[in-house]
Amino acid sequence: MRTQVGIIGAGPAGLLLSHLLHLNGIESVVIEERSEDYVRQRVRAGVLENTTTDLLREVGLGERMDREGLVHGGVSFRFDGADHRIAFEELIGRNVTVYGQQEVVKDLIDARNRDGGRLLFEVSGTAVHDIDTDRPRITFTDSAGQPQELVCDVVAGCDGFHGVSRKSVPHEAYDHTYPFAWLGVLAKAAPTREEIAYTHHERGFALYSMRSPEITRLYLQVAPDEDIANWPDDRIWAELHTRMAVAGESPVLEGPVLDKGITAMRSFVATPMRHGRLFLAGDAAHIVPPTGAKGMNLAVADVRLLSMALTELLRRNDSRLIESYSDTALRRVWRAEAFSWTMTSMLHVMPGADAFQRQVQLAQLRYTVSSTAAMTSIAENYVGLPW
Amino acid sequence: MRTQVGIIGAGPAGLLLSHLLHLNGIESVVIEERSEDYVRQRVRAGVLENTTTDLLREVGLGERMDREGLVHGGVSFRFDGADHRIAFEELIGRNVTVYGQQEVVKDLIDARNRDGGRLLFEVSGTAVHDIDTDRPRITFTDSAGQPQELVCDVVAGCDGFHGVSRKSVPHEAYDHTYPFAWLGVLAKAAPTREEIAYTHHERGFALYSMRSPEITRLYLQVAPDEDIANWPDDRIWAELHTRMAVAGESPVLEGPVLDKGITAMRSFVATPMRHGRLFLAGDAAHIVPPTGAKGMNLAVADVRLLSMALTELLRRNDSRLIESYSDTALRRVWRAEAFSWTMTSMLHVMPGADAFQRQVQLAQLRYTVSSTAAMTSIAENYVGLPW
Repeated sequence: MRTQVGIIGAGPAGLLLSHLLHLNGIESVVIEERSEDYVRQRVRAGVLENTTTDLLREVGLGERMDREGLVHGGVSFRFDGADHRIAFEELIGRNVTVYGQQEVVKDLIDARNRDGGRLLFEVSGTAVHDIDTDRPRITFTDSAGQPQELVCDVVAGCDGFHGVSRKSVPHEAYDHTYPFAWLGVLAKAAPTREEIAYTHHERGFALYSMRSPEITRLYLQVAPDEDIANWPDDRIWAELHTRMAVAGESPVLEGPVLDKGITAMRSFVATPMRHGRLFLAGDAAHIVPPTGAKGMNLAVADVRLLSMALTELLRRNDSRLIESYSDTALRRVWRAEAFSWTMTSMLHVMPGADAFQRQVQLAQLRYTVSSTAAMTSIAENYVGLPW
Repeated sequence: MRTQVGIIGAGPAGLLLSHLLHLNGIESVVIEERSEDYVRQRVRAGVLENTTTDLLREVGLGERMDREGLVHGGVSFRFDGADHRIAFEELIGRNVTVYGQQEVVKDLIDARNRDGGRLLFEVSGTAVHDIDTDRPRITFTDSAGQPQELVCDVVAGCDGFHGVSRKSVPHEAYDHTYPFAWLGVLAKAAPTREEIAYTHHERGFALYSMRSPEITRLYLQVAPDEDIANWPDDRIWAELHTRMAVAGESPVLEGPVLDKGITAMRSFVATPMRHGRLFLAGDAAHIVPPTGAKGMNLAVADVRLLSMALTELLRRNDSRLIESYSDTALRRVWRAEAFSWTMTSMLHVMPGADAFQRQVQLAQLRYTVSSTAAMTSIAENYVGLPW
């Protein structure tokens, strides 16, 4: 097989890259180890920056998002038993949209299929070769068990944190593991509020979020090595009620637990994001803790940049944007890493913090929600800094 | 002896309290273990918030400050080999004044002497008694070696971090020691720049400051247990040149070293700031690392509040302000503690930080100087939040 851009991974990064390249007249093939059903259902991120929704609309992917997505004009920081709203729209005239990653993926797969895109699911044994040449290759076994070779001009590694691509890019790794994890619950219960609430409580962080008018998404800070078996539903609800109480009353509505699990909290950046003709994008190059809601948005920012750079390279033989891709992408990556770090540090109970540090954390929260400047800083980062 | 308010300590807190009480028709006696010469020369803080200068002018202490003080419309953050200015005046229309603590103390002593204030220097063996009654007493030995007793309505403990007053107030102590210290140098060298520069360099923090058109004040981050004997002047200058270089060139002008020393970096808050008829103010109750230039300004804020509360108590027998003094003062204290913590953490090289955290710190600095909101947040804290 032959294509211009071989894309490894059919998550939001790989699929959107394929779509953007198509719009610029560049052909690509996307290969993915999981099944189509799996990626269409995979629940991950859920908050789209204003910059992301603008881009998705611009490239014809906004219709269902605008119909079904929940536009949020702010978020709340909940502490001292009260909600303190950061009003994005009032502060900076922008907002975010809650629309699950799996919905973005469905829209992208449908768009690629409609446009005749080539998506190969359930491949195995993916490997990249000759990335130091201008004819890199991807080898894999297809879903029918046949060995395949895909010869490309460029390979895009969009295969996530555990994918194979990053191994082929000599890089420096910046890695930080947090001393806590998130216990997440997806519940069939109507949200009791319209916006996300980030709770700081002496017993730990908690997050109130929602995926639809029927589905609530809730999280609790737990120990990094916590076993989900220790958390029967009753204990989860009791802990949510305690941490999220406002003026002593819990605003959490209970419902059947559809899914629960524990997610490690980690920050990671690989630099550079390129070697020869192999380019990394999204989680393959960097991950953030979910506190700042930046993961998918960073993936979108990467592939937007990469699609422009590849278009210049493959249509006009101009490699200037390709040469600066890694540096340019990493500036936004580090900004998002720093914001995610700030949000995580300001809202979680930090194991090992002394009594002074705990009081400083509260003072900082109280200041943040009382200062227009401090709230504006949160808002501009949360809704997404300009490209 | 008999007075209304017995004040322990003739630093900025005690002297200003005595002055403010005098303006409200309340008499006080200030006792101090050091000599008058010593306190008039003691070099400590040097940056006055806009709120502080406004107050000093209002109470007749602005004349020499306005003549000799250096008004700064901003500060710079220096990193990546360049200066990044936080322009207070452009951002929020306010500024700070560089005017040494010892100058404020001289103005205050002169004012108290002019107004017939009673200041007793070189006392020893100070002790407080009966603070649970409405006739608290201070006992001490005066400079002539005579034992004295000062009977008061109220005692104000303004005797600094190492003073005796705090020991008489049952309190919770919030204490944090930083894993670094400041090596400070006072040099007879004309400043090469008009504003303070806070430098973040991979070898450590450095601060460029000035006390007059002839005197430069410079600091270097060093290990917490560093011995000044390891720092001959040559080594200090070499290190200053390296850390403070802008675009590879050092803007530091050398000159005779008038004084040098190492200062530990510590945060401390005692809560509450009152027991019975003994009230703490300034460093007696809380200290901050010097990074945010908040120490003397907090002392001024405390005694402003305390003078109003004591006036209500002693002139109108109204104890409402006195009852809320500690809580009200502590709100500003914690805000300043959190700001000092933020400034310290964002600018120093943090021992134990991993490579990821070091990159996040740089990303945060780069963001801060590129965002109007983030710079405004720094500015409003640095020049002093409203009372």
